[in-house]
Amino acid sequence: MNEINLDTIKKTYERIEPYIHKTPILTCHTFDEIASKYNKRKLYFKCENFQKVGAFKVRGAMNAILNTNEKIVVTHSSGNHAQALAYGSKIFKKTSYIIMPKTSPIVKQNAVKGYGGNIILCEPTLEDREKECEKILLEKGGKLIHPYNDENIINGTGTISIEIINQLKDIQLDSVLCPIGGGGLISGISIGFKGFNKNIQIFGGEPKEADDAKRSFEQKKLLSHEKIPKTIADGLMTTLGSKTFPIILENVSQIFTATEDEIIRAMKLVYERMKIVIEPSSAVCVAIALWNEDFLKLENVHEIVIIISGGNVDLLKLPFY
Amino acid sequence: MNEINLDTIKKTYERIEPYIHKTPILTCHTFDEIASKYNKRKLYFKCENFQKVGAFKVRGAMNAILNTNEKIVVTHSSGNHAQALAYGSKIFKKTSYIIMPKTSPIVKQNAVKGYGGNIILCEPTLEDREKECEKILLEKGGKLIHPYNDENIINGTGTISIEIINQLKDIQLDSVLCPIGGGGLISGISIGFKGFNKNIQIFGGEPKEADDAKRSFEQKKLLSHEKIPKTIADGLMTTLGSKTFPIILENVSQIFTATEDEIIRAMKLVYERMKIVIEPSSAVCVAIALWNEDFLKLENVHEIVIIISGGNVDLLKLPFY
Repeated sequence: MNEINLDTIKKTYERIEPYIHKTPILTCHTFDEIASKYNKRKLYFKCENFQKVGAFKVRGAMNAILNTNEKIVVTHSSGNHAQALAYGSKIFKKTSYIIMPKTSPIVKQNAVKGYGGNIILCEPTLEDREKECEKILLEKGGKLIHPYNDENIINGTGTISIEIINQLKDIQLDSVLCPIGGGGLISGISIGFKGFNKNIQIFGGEPKEADDAKRSFEQKKLLSHEKIPKTIADGLMTTLGSKTFPIILENVSQIFTATEDEIIRAMKLVYERMKIVIEPSSAVCVAIALWNEDFLKLENVHEIVIIISGGNVDLLKLPFY
Repeated sequence: MNEINLDTIKKTYERIEPYIHKTPILTCHTFDEIASKYNKRKLYFKCENFQKVGAFKVRGAMNAILNTNEKIVVTHSSGNHAQALAYGSKIFKKTSYIIMPKTSPIVKQNAVKGYGGNIILCEPTLEDREKECEKILLEKGGKLIHPYNDENIINGTGTISIEIINQLKDIQLDSVLCPIGGGGLISGISIGFKGFNKNIQIFGGEPKEADDAKRSFEQKKLLSHEKIPKTIADGLMTTLGSKTFPIILENVSQIFTATEDEIIRAMKLVYERMKIVIEPSSAVCVAIALWNEDFLKLENVHEIVIIISGGNVDLLKLPFY
């Protein structure tokens, strides 16, 4: 893999900036109060739910598309990466083939179709997804754009750090709390921040029910899930990749988890108090910042950015109670 | 009534500015496209759902509290004005008594209690609300702060126009679309905008099922509801007041309505595409801007501010289907 660093991320930002939104950073007094149980803290919510297609994924997908001459791009994804790749392909007049598990919600399939993506349905297993993907690549040609284990994707996600650094230039930021699924998001962001100031601490957040990254990180060994994870945070069910794991090992200070109940409560509190729509995967780090005792007790953690990764949620199936 | 004009509104803004949020203005390409069916249009959403207590009501309530020496304030309200008055009273160490219909949602009663407001429950009729209100004023003394038929409230809501004018100073704004309940919001806003530039057109929006303002406006006669209105836009069920009706007659160009189905569809589209939480009352004007044929066909309407009045919604009872 070519090296990824603050310079490559800055160049990526110049490349994709015309095609993405600069998303706002929100703050909320209620959340600061809860988060300050042991130590005075202020939370800055970087709102990628306001990004094009409703999630950060468009940054990486756009970068990958801009960096290939192929007319056809292919991926397997049930979620935001699928929409992002279809959207980017529409902008740059490429043809996209998206392999989606046949169980993926109609609302997500419709979003991909809405951007002109060609959907190929498959069985909901990683094996079948990869098999269908290879079949399409053989049939149609084109380039596979992996959802996270890809340097273009990691450079793309890293551009979030550039924006935050510019937006919070008057703040003595000390920490970043970022969700981990396949690790593409935290990889890019951590490289950006560490390149800017290596004292900024990077923390990861995962559902307790899908804690492969935490276990891998603590055992310094790339582990998979012991069983198929059951979590409402559907964007964080994937496991780390060969390219993201080493970056996480190098840059991340610690990984925390949140229970399903905490994730749902945090999500509801964000809707109620901040009045923004976020997806369950984005509520994981909010829950950790509010209620994870180990995280709350950390010293030297005061000015914290929380990455809100996306806002694509099925409004007919909100989990509130 | 003392005169309300751009100057009194500016003075009000200086008074309340330290205690309120300057709320953002959002735009969304998807909505512009739908709204441009006949004429090219751009929509600017003034997001008072991000205001303190989740609604514009805090502007008027804060102003009313700052303008009284009484230690006790009293009102009857089942909604956002109740929370706003309780919140303002907490800030300025006043005692608030809020008469609420016993049918009002527990979530709203809890919000008022959370700000330290004293709730007196009454029967869900205007007669009983007013009777209980008088009883409390006799018993406890203090000042009645009416939810909309009050010049302090109208000056307070007018401050929204000052913010918009500053935020959109590079735009040739030609129109404002604002929801009408009791008329406090559109009264203040229309005075502010007309004082700044009398060519800016002010349009009102109402649920078709609670169209007292439209009928009153067209017949130039203050009318009530013919029957108890049944609309999801619970904040717009009140009727115009003696102080707001003349202002509306003078400043408003036309009033449009939206059906219940359109209100719900507009609300869902805002959650899905803009990723913000709004209450049904705020979806009425969005629906009109997107789908009301009479509004869509208006000429000389291109750069439109839509007032998003609040975001207080019961998340367990979202109306989506």
